Amino acid sequence: MKNMIKKYPVETTFGQVLQKLRKERSLSQESLGYESGYHRTYISLLERGQKSPSIKTLFQLAKALDIKPSSLIELVEQKMKDQ
Amino acid sequence: MKNMIKKYPVETTFGQVLQKLRKERSLSQESLGYESGYHRTYISLLERGQKSPSIKTLFQLAKALDIKPSSLIELVEQKMKDQ
Repeated sequence: MKNMIKKYPVETTFGQVLQKLRKERSLSQESLGYESGYHRTYISLLERGQKSPSIKTLFQLAKALDIKPSSLIELVEQKMKDQ
Repeated sequence: MKNMIKKYPVETTFGQVLQKLRKERSLSQESLGYESGYHRTYISLLERGQKSPSIKTLFQLAKALDIKPSSLIELVEQKMKDQ
């Protein structure tokens, strides 16, 4: 588990899940940013795994994506297991 | 939902859940800090809702508490609903 986290940092996987969810909802980075209260450049950094969101951000993004924060984290867990 | 988050910020609820899980496992703030790679003062700040953990921190704390990160977030969601 420790090695897995090192190889695929949680931020990278979170970013991939975030991008997938956003695209599934046909949202632009700009509109997701608008809905969640962040700038599109921050959304872009998150999707590229270059920022680690706080749990507050997690809750705001999940709300904008109409998904439970725990379900979003579950998708991250699953994706980390698959890698 | 928006008002609820304002009244009971996610950090406050996260801190309460974190403390409950730690005590259930008979861990001190110091030993949880040691297991998760943080200083006990940071654990204390988290438990009092004075810091917003990143998702990386969430994953590390969950690992030290032997709970899935998504399950920890689910406990936070449930507690926010109850309040």
